[in-house]
Amino acid sequence: MKKVYVSDTPQQTGKTVALYGWVSNLRDHKKIVFIDLRDSTGIVQVVGDEKFKNLHPEDVVKIEGTVKKRPEKLINKKLLTGEIEIEAKSFEVLSHAETPPFDMGKESLDVTLPTLLDYRSLTLRHPKVSAIFKVQEKVIDSFREILKEQGFREFQAPILVPAQAEGGAETFAVEYFDHKAYLGQSPQLYKQIMLGVFDKVFTVTHAFRAEPSVTTRHITEYISLDAEMAFIESWEEIMDTAESVVKKIIETVEESCSKELQLLEAVLPKVSEKFPRLTLTEAQDIIFERTKRDVRKEPDLSPADEDEICKWANEQHGSELVFITHYPTSKRPFYTYPDPKNPELTLSFDLIGRGIEWITGGQRINDYKQLVSNLKKWGDDPANYDVYLQAFKYGMPPEGGFAMGAERITMKLLNLANVREAALFPRDMERVDVRLSKKSKKS
Amino acid sequence: MKKVYVSDTPQQTGKTVALYGWVSNLRDHKKIVFIDLRDSTGIVQVVGDEKFKNLHPEDVVKIEGTVKKRPEKLINKKLLTGEIEIEAKSFEVLSHAETPPFDMGKESLDVTLPTLLDYRSLTLRHPKVSAIFKVQEKVIDSFREILKEQGFREFQAPILVPAQAEGGAETFAVEYFDHKAYLGQSPQLYKQIMLGVFDKVFTVTHAFRAEPSVTTRHITEYISLDAEMAFIESWEEIMDTAESVVKKIIETVEESCSKELQLLEAVLPKVSEKFPRLTLTEAQDIIFERTKRDVRKEPDLSPADEDEICKWANEQHGSELVFITHYPTSKRPFYTYPDPKNPELTLSFDLIGRGIEWITGGQRINDYKQLVSNLKKWGDDPANYDVYLQAFKYGMPPEGGFAMGAERITMKLLNLANVREAALFPRDMERVDVRLSKKSKKS
Repeated sequence: MKKVYVSDTPQQTGKTVALYGWVSNLRDHKKIVFIDLRDSTGIVQVVGDEKFKNLHPEDVVKIEGTVKKRPEKLINKKLLTGEIEIEAKSFEVLSHAETPPFDMGKESLDVTLPTLLDYRSLTLRHPKVSAIFKVQEKVIDSFREILKEQGFREFQAPILVPAQAEGGAETFAVEYFDHKAYLGQSPQLYKQIMLGVFDKVFTVTHAFRAEPSVTTRHITEYISLDAEMAFIESWEEIMDTAESVVKKIIETVEESCSKELQLLEAVLPKVSEKFPRLTLTEAQDIIFERTKRDVRKEPDLSPADEDEICKWANEQHGSELVFITHYPTSKRPFYTYPDPKNPELTLSFDLIGRGIEWITGGQRINDYKQLVSNLKKWGDDPANYDVYLQAFKYGMPPEGGFAMGAERITMKLLNLANVREAALFPRDMERVDVRLSKKSKKS
Repeated sequence: MKKVYVSDTPQQTGKTVALYGWVSNLRDHKKIVFIDLRDSTGIVQVVGDEKFKNLHPEDVVKIEGTVKKRPEKLINKKLLTGEIEIEAKSFEVLSHAETPPFDMGKESLDVTLPTLLDYRSLTLRHPKVSAIFKVQEKVIDSFREILKEQGFREFQAPILVPAQAEGGAETFAVEYFDHKAYLGQSPQLYKQIMLGVFDKVFTVTHAFRAEPSVTTRHITEYISLDAEMAFIESWEEIMDTAESVVKKIIETVEESCSKELQLLEAVLPKVSEKFPRLTLTEAQDIIFERTKRDVRKEPDLSPADEDEICKWANEQHGSELVFITHYPTSKRPFYTYPDPKNPELTLSFDLIGRGIEWITGGQRINDYKQLVSNLKKWGDDPANYDVYLQAFKYGMPPEGGFAMGAERITMKLLNLANVREAALFPRDMERVDVRLSKKSKKS
């Protein structure tokens, strides 16, 4: 008998098939039983006789039956398999489930965020939750694909690093034999080193921030999508590449995730052929003009400013994404390239979309002595940057790059309220799978 | 002027081009200077006038010149660009280098392993070192590609985990706010959870083992290539999938890395259409017959045994890779599925190649109560497996999977002597980039 996925059943009308999945819902109509059968591709209605009353929600089953067209008036347009149903002949329970603490068969899960995460192994199975991660897979795939097309090579950045870099306040320490090591806050230093080896590189890796506050946009472990390119002739090439990546991601999700977007009622951001580019000063002038709020002396944009400038970009340029450039040197890391026209400013950028930072990037200093001097100026110890500085000591080309968090991009593409919804197993100061308050404190 | 990569120069004969790269070597012949120019694609000979004497090894340069055919007797067959040279017109130094501590221009780097790693940012640039990581990229790409072809979905496993699993002896602890978290020893538990969401999954992730010894085959952080599949009807499907993955990796490296294999003088392992499959007992009988060493009561194969059984497989089946199955229950993790015919043994396997384990895998127990009972039997606390056990409590199908380390596969494909050569930035108990003896001990 043909083993088919739920999503393929409409093409099997009239045929007898074998389906494998979970009992999502069970409706007892005395002589007959309606079951919503769920597999990784979707949900289909199964009609069985009285024997099927022995099934329970989340039981794992093999069901054999015939695919039948539903009568016109029973078609369910909300379901992708809603024109058919399975007339079941037999079932086999592959694994019995205990009764779930909430109804997994509802169209939308009716649980709070803490419950969504307390029961993560269960809630991830719900179609509206798993859809988020089908989209996230495509976000990462398309990042990889467009960069490979442009001649970038993928490398694997290490997670364990020898020293607290960039201040260290938000770094996690690891007990490493008789020493301490740290979890990388970003693959930044390694992707720069790799430009000595391959001239365009990217990595899909994990980055860690010991964020001491709980917000809707921060988690302690996130997927960092990082790219870096050497032998640039202008720092604007970096923005061009970042722009091509974001456009590719949106296009790919639009083309290959239409089912998921429909299910999640998500509307992808509108973008223009070229994203608008404003200096921070220009952006602040526009905000002042539009709102009369004077932020022109601020070194950065506040969330309210980011909202406002996104509105402007959408109204004026039909783009929900906008580049902001030339952030002040004082607000950027030690390796950021100063603007030759005004060294108080940097050749750096953020890509802002839907009121939040999507990408951060810029040109980097590639002069050894300047890096050493900046490290000291930033209050850091060059000895902690040994392997990094080595790369520049022995010659590094003009270069730059950018980075984005996969969870945050997924969150904004799908307009989710909290970045935790876009992380498979979100970690924050209160939770690593289980709530930390339940665990004993460290001795 | 056309910007070209070194590897593309032979196709540009007669044309004037711009090259970007590093001065790998410089030979002063009074009126003329020969330079080996290196970029990420290879090395080409550049001929310049006296002005070029101002260049130094590892300087980053832009060189403009004309691609000329070399006279027959000056053709260098060892170099992929050996039929041409660049008649340089001008150069521009993009970044000055300090004098490297060893000659980067040699055909093979003449340094010890500690020096190779002490100067990692520099040594990675050598063509014979960077070639290893071009191969490794293909290993990972082909793992991903063949599994996607077979309907597997990629997910991102978390690195931070809530508890020391599987005994915990070799786990790194992380200072996590007021608590402790740990670095995952493998994505095992998460890939199993994910089968409730997608029925076939894989992940490319980092795994951590606090190996307290220094060997040629262990590092503390490695790239784990992990796959898991649900709704299996026989545990042999898992071996079939693992076999298809390894064959795809070898085929891909053969097809797309011929230059790198030639440079490294590497011969890929020979494999048969189907890899031989032996139970541990059968393997031990064969070893006894061949060597008269009686290992028939041992619960595992020693390195000498692994060598011997690989020899046998090569002689008898023309395969340098061989599956060994049915390891004893006592030697496998708590989740390993017992053989219904003899519960002292498991439905597990290792793939052994060139005297070392390449892959480990098997069917998993998918019954909640059996897992809880086994955890207790293995001396572990089920409370540490909260989110994992949740998946099985609410129904999980028959399943299994396998895992392999990208560095170890790369090492054995290329016949490298030490796994550290196949790790970009290898970490062990003595080194995290820098030697730990140079760092102060933790307080």
